[in-house]
Amino acid sequence: MENNLSGIAKVRANILNHLNTYQHSETIYNASKYSIEAGGKGLRPLLLFTVLEALGESPDKGISAASAIEMIHTYSLIHDDLPAMDNDDLRRGKPTNHIVFGEGTAILAGDNLLNESFNVIAKDKELTAEVRIRLVETISTASGQSGMISGQMLDIEAEKRATTLEELETIHAYKTGALIKAPVTAACIIADAAQEVTRRLENFSEVIGVLFQIKDDILDMEGNPELTGKNTGSDVKKGKVTYVSELGLDGAKGALADKVDEAYRILDSLNELISTAGLRKIVQKFAERDQ
Amino acid sequence: MENNLSGIAKVRANILNHLNTYQHSETIYNASKYSIEAGGKGLRPLLLFTVLEALGESPDKGISAASAIEMIHTYSLIHDDLPAMDNDDLRRGKPTNHIVFGEGTAILAGDNLLNESFNVIAKDKELTAEVRIRLVETISTASGQSGMISGQMLDIEAEKRATTLEELETIHAYKTGALIKAPVTAACIIADAAQEVTRRLENFSEVIGVLFQIKDDILDMEGNPELTGKNTGSDVKKGKVTYVSELGLDGAKGALADKVDEAYRILDSLNELISTAGLRKIVQKFAERDQ
Repeated sequence: MENNLSGIAKVRANILNHLNTYQHSETIYNASKYSIEAGGKGLRPLLLFTVLEALGESPDKGISAASAIEMIHTYSLIHDDLPAMDNDDLRRGKPTNHIVFGEGTAILAGDNLLNESFNVIAKDKELTAEVRIRLVETISTASGQSGMISGQMLDIEAEKRATTLEELETIHAYKTGALIKAPVTAACIIADAAQEVTRRLENFSEVIGVLFQIKDDILDMEGNPELTGKNTGSDVKKGKVTYVSELGLDGAKGALADKVDEAYRILDSLNELISTAGLRKIVQKFAERDQ
Repeated sequence: MENNLSGIAKVRANILNHLNTYQHSETIYNASKYSIEAGGKGLRPLLLFTVLEALGESPDKGISAASAIEMIHTYSLIHDDLPAMDNDDLRRGKPTNHIVFGEGTAILAGDNLLNESFNVIAKDKELTAEVRIRLVETISTASGQSGMISGQMLDIEAEKRATTLEELETIHAYKTGALIKAPVTAACIIADAAQEVTRRLENFSEVIGVLFQIKDDILDMEGNPELTGKNTGSDVKKGKVTYVSELGLDGAKGALADKVDEAYRILDSLNELISTAGLRKIVQKFAERDQ
């Protein structure tokens, strides 16, 4: 892999190749492919590859794990957009999966991406059995009831009543934080990182997970709809508790700056152990993104 | 495990213990638990344990694999019952998951059972990493786009138009056959069975998969609604192509008898290699069941 920009392209190609190779239903293939190609920012794969590089390991070793995490992220968006959940017709300016393929197919396509994510890892014979099963355990712990799925449920339930900032932090830690931490832990497993390095990198991932969410809430208030793909203030209109609704716009920006400092401090503490330049760029990217 | 009857009870206890231990959302836990407790016949775990015994291996070694397969079977029923899919209010005489918990929660509870199925296997440290990752690969291949999910999609698409018996066989091979074969392959992996024994047992599982489906179609026509949990002739009323609609009731019974003979012939060929008594009982159980 020449640079990180090409990383997400490699991941998408790997996912589409897997989906195409083992398909027995054209509809399932097309619906799964549609949402993979609709393409997110690829932040999770980027994080995984950057940690591998920081640890002196070849990013190519992380393609199956990055594919699995991107597939899980994509499935969660397909199911989140369903009428019974958030009922969104558009995502990133494109019609959502169920609008194009119908609800039944969208449910199955989401199931498919979740299911195949573990198949992709299991089939990666470049990794030892021990590494592969640890990846399955780590990723499924992050995406299931110990992480993302509980976060989605808590988020739905929180919309029905007043929520505190503390509850908001818990929800985000599960709903988005767990799947931002997973690529970091996955990279540490693949590179066989020392326990203390893993601990600090996981701590770093928790900080940038919160940073990511604060930035998301700020973008909701003052982002460019053409870039963010959603209307300004849409969270506030839905009555959602956000960092901005709790802290105000300036307060949220202050909290963002604090998290940036905290992330850099952790990287400082790792300077003598690993190469942190790429991770510093990630902090910047997370904090300054406009979409 | 004293006998096979207690096998499914152990599997359910193992699943509920896992769901309870790692939960962060009471709603997700309750909804997942509801459908696990609503309880199927446990035929897939029974098959897995019986093959382990036939191979001289302790059935206890198969509890995580049997749990995973039962969780996947259960998730597929939750999603199948959704309004966007089959739209069923009742299953086995009880309200379906989305009727009790709402559609959004039912979607997430299904996702959860699928996700956690692989987590259960990954966490079973009694098995080697090599065995665990082969189980993840085998089971996810059976339940994903190479198997069950494609079968569900083909089944939905087949309802909209005329279907031949050949297409019906293809759909069933994916939709139900793959997850009847998976416990047999899983048991062979756990017991490290010889290649030729595995091949014949997988062949056996394909035959009883078809046998199972023919019996299902016969029960739809002449089963006792109190035992089957659905109205007599409900498939025919939905205009579904079944073995009975294609072959007539007597023809279907003849086809069932043929499959029983075929299954016994395969077991005869295995007589000198493994202990087939338990598997003979399974053939009988599959062919003579009244629910």
